[in-house]
Order: sequence, then C-alpha cells, then structure tokens
Amino acid sequence: MGLIVQKFGGTSVADAERIHRAAKRAIATQSRGNQVVVVVSAMGDATDDLIELAKKVCTYGGVDTTPPKREMDQLLVTGEQVTIALMAMAIHAQGNQAISFTGGQIGLVTDDAFSKAKIQSINKQRIFEQLEKGRIVIVAGFQGMTADGDYTTLGRGGSNATLVAVGAVLKADVCENFTDVDGIFTADPRIVKNARKIDRISYDEMLELSGLGASVLQTRAVEFAKKYNVPLHVRNSQNETEGTWIVAETPNMEHIVVSGVALKKDLIRVTLKSVPDRPGIAARIFGEIAAANIVVDDIIQNVMDDNTANISFTVEHGELNDVKPIVDALVKELGGKLGPTYHSDLAKVSVVGAGMRVHTGVAQRMFKALADARINIQNITTSEIKISCIIAKEDGPKALQIIHDAFELGKA
Amino acid sequence: MGLIVQKFGGTSVADAERIHRAAKRAIATQSRGNQVVVVVSAMGDATDDLIELAKKVCTYGGVDTTPPKREMDQLLVTGEQVTIALMAMAIHAQGNQAISFTGGQIGLVTDDAFSKAKIQSINKQRIFEQLEKGRIVIVAGFQGMTADGDYTTLGRGGSNATLVAVGAVLKADVCENFTDVDGIFTADPRIVKNARKIDRISYDEMLELSGLGASVLQTRAVEFAKKYNVPLHVRNSQNETEGTWIVAETPNMEHIVVSGVALKKDLIRVTLKSVPDRPGIAARIFGEIAAANIVVDDIIQNVMDDNTANISFTVEHGELNDVKPIVDALVKELGGKLGPTYHSDLAKVSVVGAGMRVHTGVAQRMFKALADARINIQNITTSEIKISCIIAKEDGPKALQIIHDAFELGKA
Repeated sequence: MGLIVQKFGGTSVADAERIHRAAKRAIATQSRGNQVVVVVSAMGDATDDLIELAKKVCTYGGVDTTPPKREMDQLLVTGEQVTIALMAMAIHAQGNQAISFTGGQIGLVTDDAFSKAKIQSINKQRIFEQLEKGRIVIVAGFQGMTADGDYTTLGRGGSNATLVAVGAVLKADVCENFTDVDGIFTADPRIVKNARKIDRISYDEMLELSGLGASVLQTRAVEFAKKYNVPLHVRNSQNETEGTWIVAETPNMEHIVVSGVALKKDLIRVTLKSVPDRPGIAARIFGEIAAANIVVDDIIQNVMDDNTANISFTVEHGELNDVKPIVDALVKELGGKLGPTYHSDLAKVSVVGAGMRVHTGVAQRMFKALADARINIQNITTSEIKISCIIAKEDGPKALQIIHDAFELGKA
Repeated sequence: MGLIVQKFGGTSVADAERIHRAAKRAIATQSRGNQVVVVVSAMGDATDDLIELAKKVCTYGGVDTTPPKREMDQLLVTGEQVTIALMAMAIHAQGNQAISFTGGQIGLVTDDAFSKAKIQSINKQRIFEQLEKGRIVIVAGFQGMTADGDYTTLGRGGSNATLVAVGAVLKADVCENFTDVDGIFTADPRIVKNARKIDRISYDEMLELSGLGASVLQTRAVEFAKKYNVPLHVRNSQNETEGTWIVAETPNMEHIVVSGVALKKDLIRVTLKSVPDRPGIAARIFGEIAAANIVVDDIIQNVMDDNTANISFTVEHGELNDVKPIVDALVKELGGKLGPTYHSDLAKVSVVGAGMRVHTGVAQRMFKALADARINIQNITTSEIKISCIIAKEDGPKALQIIHDAFELGKA
C-alpha cells in the first residue's frame, strides 16, 4: 500500500501497443493496493516532428527565422497532451478508471522562461481527489503554465522534472522512471561495452553523473528528488528487472570509490581575454548569462601580470547562439583588449564516487590512465565527489573506456 | 478601418505553404488599417488522424471500447493548438506580430457536454489588449474549456461557432469565413453541376439551408450571427473573389422565391408505435433525447383510434448508437405495444426562400417535380421559408437536381 508515481518516456509510449503495455503496468501497480499517478512524455518522435513542422513554417522566402519561444511552447505541449488522453483511453479500454491532466490542469505553475521554465508550484488537491475515487491519474510531463495562463515547457528532461515534482508534492513512496534501459550504468553502455548496471547510488553521485552527461536523468530531477527525499527507481519498461535505486547516501556507500564515469560530448569553451581584474566582474558576467537561462558548465579564471584576467567557461554547443550576443556585448562594454574566443569540439570526461571523500589517489589514477593513452588534458575541475577533465571531443569515447577500465568498473 | 475576424478551415491551413498564404491574407487585411483576429481549424486531416489513433488505442484484446468523451476532447483540442502556434510563427516569419490563444486562454467557457459543448462566454479583454498592441490575434477554433478547466470541443462546425462567437463579443464589422469554395451555392455543386453562387442571403434562409445539409456553415454559427447581427462573408481562401454575404433580411430579398435547395443524405426515422396518448408524453420523450444532446431533425405524430399515438422522428445516422438505448428504455417504461422501429436509408430534400412568405405555389411545384420523376414522398414538413420532403436515400441526388431545375436556380 503506497503512492507510486510512474513515468513513461517517449519510446515507452511510442505506439498504441506500447501505450497499452504501460497502461497494464500502471494497472498492475494499482491492483497491488497502491494509488498510482502516471507521468508521460510525447509519443516517440512526436516532439521532433513538431519541431520539424515549426522549422518549415519559420522558413519564409528562403530565410530562416526564429520562432517566438512562447509559440514554440504553445506548439510543443500538444505532444504530451496527446499521450495523456490516449493513456487514459488505454486504461479505460482495459477496464479500469483513469483521468488525464495537462500541466495547467493540475496547476503546475512555472516561471515564464519559455522552453526552459522552472516549476514553482503544483496544486495537489485535484490529483488527490481523483486518486481517492480509485482512478489512475495521468499527468502530462515536460509542461506547465505561467500564472498568466501561457503554456511553458520545462526544457530537456522536463518529464523527469515533472515526475519528481509530482512525487514530491504528493509525498510519494517512490518515483519509478521507466525507460528503455535497465537502469543507471557505470558508463554509457553504447560507448563502453563492459559497463555494468548500478544497483544503488546516492543522490549526490547521481547529481554529478547526470550533470556530466549521463543522460537517463537530468540534474534538475535529481536535485528535486534529493531536496524532498523522494526515492527514485530507474527501470526498464520492457521487463520486470529491478533497476537502479537513487536514494539518500548511506555509510556503506563509501566503500565504493568510483560509482561511474561520464562523458559530456559537445562543449564549447568561451574565453574572455584581458578583462580588467576588479571585484564584481565575474558576478556581472555570469549574472547576465544566468539571467538568459544559459547553463554554464565549468568556469576557469586566471589572473595575469597586467591586472587583467582571462575568464573561461564551457557551455553546451547548443547554447552558443544564445550566449554569443551576451558575451560580445559584455566584452565591448568591459573593454576586453582581445575579443572573446570560442573554442569548440571539446568533451569532458569525469569520474564520480561518494567514496572519494575518504579515499585518496583517485585523481592520480585517472590522469595516469589518460596520459598512458596519450590523451591531452586541457582543463581540470573537481568537486568533493568527482574529477573532470576537458579533452578534445574526438578523444571522448576512448577516454571514457580507458578510465572505466582503470577503475575496474566492469567487474561486479 | 474596422475589426475583422477571419476563419481558415482545415484545408486552408493543411501545410506550411497554405498557412503562409492564410497568414499573408491576415497581414494584408491588417495593413489596410484593420484590427484582425484569425480563427483556425486543425490542419487538413489532423483531427481525423487523432480520431484514428484513439480508435486504435480503444481496441483492446480485439474488443472495441468507447473512449471517455472527456479524454476524446482532451485529445482533439491539440489539433487546433498546433495550428494556432504555427500560424503565429508564420506571421512572425513574414515580419509581423502575432500571438496565439487556445479556447481556454481567451476564457471561452462552455458547458460540459463533451464533444458538442455550447459556448457560454468569452473574455474579450485578453484579445483587445493584444489587438491594441498591434498584434494579429490567433484563436483556436472548435474548442473551449469548462468552468472546471476541462477541455471541450464544440462539435461539427465548431470552428465556425468560434468565428461567430468571437465576432459577436468583439462586435466585429465582419466575420470572414475562408473555405475552399467560392461561397454558398443554390445547391451542392458536387451534385448539381449548374449550381450558382449566391451573392447575398438572409440569416433565416441560411439557417434553413445549413440545418438542411448545406455543409459550408452550421446552424449554430448562423443563429449566433443572426442573434448578434454579425455580417458573415463566406469566401474562397485561394482567390480574391467576393463570396456570399449572409446578412439581415432586406425587403428586396422577397423577390427571390427560392434561394437554394439542400439535401440531407443519411437520416434514420425512429418510430414509437402505440404509445399512450396522454399529455406530457412527447415532452418526456424529447426531453430525454435533448438531455443526451442528440439533435432531432423532424418530428411527426399521428393519433390513432385506440387512444394511442405513433410518434416518429428523424435523426442523423451517426446518432443511432446514442439514441437507441434511450428510446428502447422509454418504450419499455411507457408500455408501447409495438416496440420501436428504426428505418434507415432516408434522405431529406428541401427548398428554401424568404420569398415563400409572399409567393404561393412553391410546394405544388416541388411535389410535381418529384412526382414527374417518380420519386415517392414519405413525409413532408414545412416552415415559413422552407419545404422539406423525406425520400429514399438513393433518390436524393436526383431529387436535388430536378428540384433545382424546376425552380430554374441555375439561371442568373
């Protein structure tokens, strides 16, 4: 007996048959005495198809224009709305009761940062009313509504953000994230063949891994789960295998020095050269970038002899169009002598493990593995439980494999 | 200078190119100094595709189930939402400003009769705010929202209902209904080859024609236009030709005895035999049918010698599944001796003209034309400005042509 929130991603609801399989799973969970809320993504390629359609419409007279972000979100939210209605119909066809809700209909209020909005609140009342009637409640992932009633989307991994946010407000016993893989692996199994499924991992480790390019769960979803202490269970929608549990850290997790390695594939390093070295400059730069809702990856600053500083930071390649006008304007205003440079084709390889807090020699082992493979390290950044190296993009997959091997992660 | 509401149907927004053509038209109208609101339908076959998808999901284990109507509406409203976003993007790509609204976003509140909801109110404030900013306002046709926040659809021709309702609350100077034909014709041109475009027609005549199966405009839209005295202009989205103006009746319209003929193709006659002939029975029967939101076409009642009555009425073929359980239960309860009969394969052919009020001999001319062609008349019903005959479905197209010829409607 409990309250379980389940999420089915796009591939798990890609056609009528798979929707029925997901519906069956939700019904089975309910029949074991649980209240069940189901969060769904858009069907298969539905979102990509909508983006394609928008691109076509935004090309006029041979010129590409950028669609207004509000209208893009107005368009994209329809993808999940289709799935929730079909999922409710599927559950009904299987003889059970269900009701579907868009983000707006459960009062999932966000800010107005269209295309990457942040959840501000959810009205749990409407969900509980329906659960108490014995219905399975279907919620559209990835979307919300501003206080003014404009539709918003939550950005990449938004459906997972919905999963955890709904789980948190309902104080769910577990959030089950159904995907097409068996769980979280010690490395991306598409790159590292001997990668192994992890049974349990702490929120902090998962946070580092998801922030570093392990794409099953996004940072935001894990942060939310940690904050509200909601256990997350990442599992395969096609089988009954136990997946990976993401939970609060327990003392015996420290025995594992490195839990996993991750690769972030497509980074750009922006460098502002010879910026005046006075207090407040960094705050100014990164304040403006944050205000534009651009996520900065790593920051490196070196002070030079002439009282100027070189400030570098990395962002994902896709952010370049957003970040460039801001940086160019700032450099002009701040009087950088040597205009900004944009260095693309970078990758970041990282090792993550709660055990690093008590074990030494992890960094040395990582650097040696890279050196032995003649892979050049361009930058290094660290946290309490991770070490990252910026390398050339082309070296990424190889680096991931050799570090995975260096820590013997393929062995049980 | 005025306020113009334009509606583009599904075929006029079926792909990116046509959306741009419609956008261009709206922009041209605005550039002539008008404020412009655009109502759009779902793209081409989008609604049919969604219905297909729902059908697939509602078939489980080889059994067809009926989807919950609320979920069907939750699904279908996405069709128009896609179009409004794309239309706003298209206008933006052409260098103008636009903003899109779903039914819910302009406070288009309906009752909760899912799949054929009725409009209760529209919040014009949000539209006016945007018009005053110089934007073209795009509104999703066919849809609304209940006071509880559930999505509803307005039933067949719902986009036209939206067009006229929006025109009415904004006190628009004209509602332009863009379709793929040049206007309203004296008969369906797909059946009657010499059918002619009508330049002006009164609301009442159009009401009879649309109620009788002339499918360009639905009864509801015309009723609304009449009630709020909004001039309707039905025209072709592919050319600049003047279409048909639907306006309040003027004295010289009486010179035209018959404006048009119409055919309703697929009717079913339900007969309740030997029902006790006491007051209140008819009210009871049609009360229950109306409560189920089923539209009754014609009603015929004959009192018999034994103090019982035969009550017949016609409904569209598609309503049979909804109407049958109600009628069967009623007959059981009322003690009809001879259970209900359902007579299918019927059609109704009608002549309509405001001039009938002052001209005689119209009925005789119609009946004679049918008799000469050896078409049997099963029932006759009349109003002030129309005469209808129920005939066999197979005689429908022929009857339409010969009546069109009998009144010489093909001649200018």
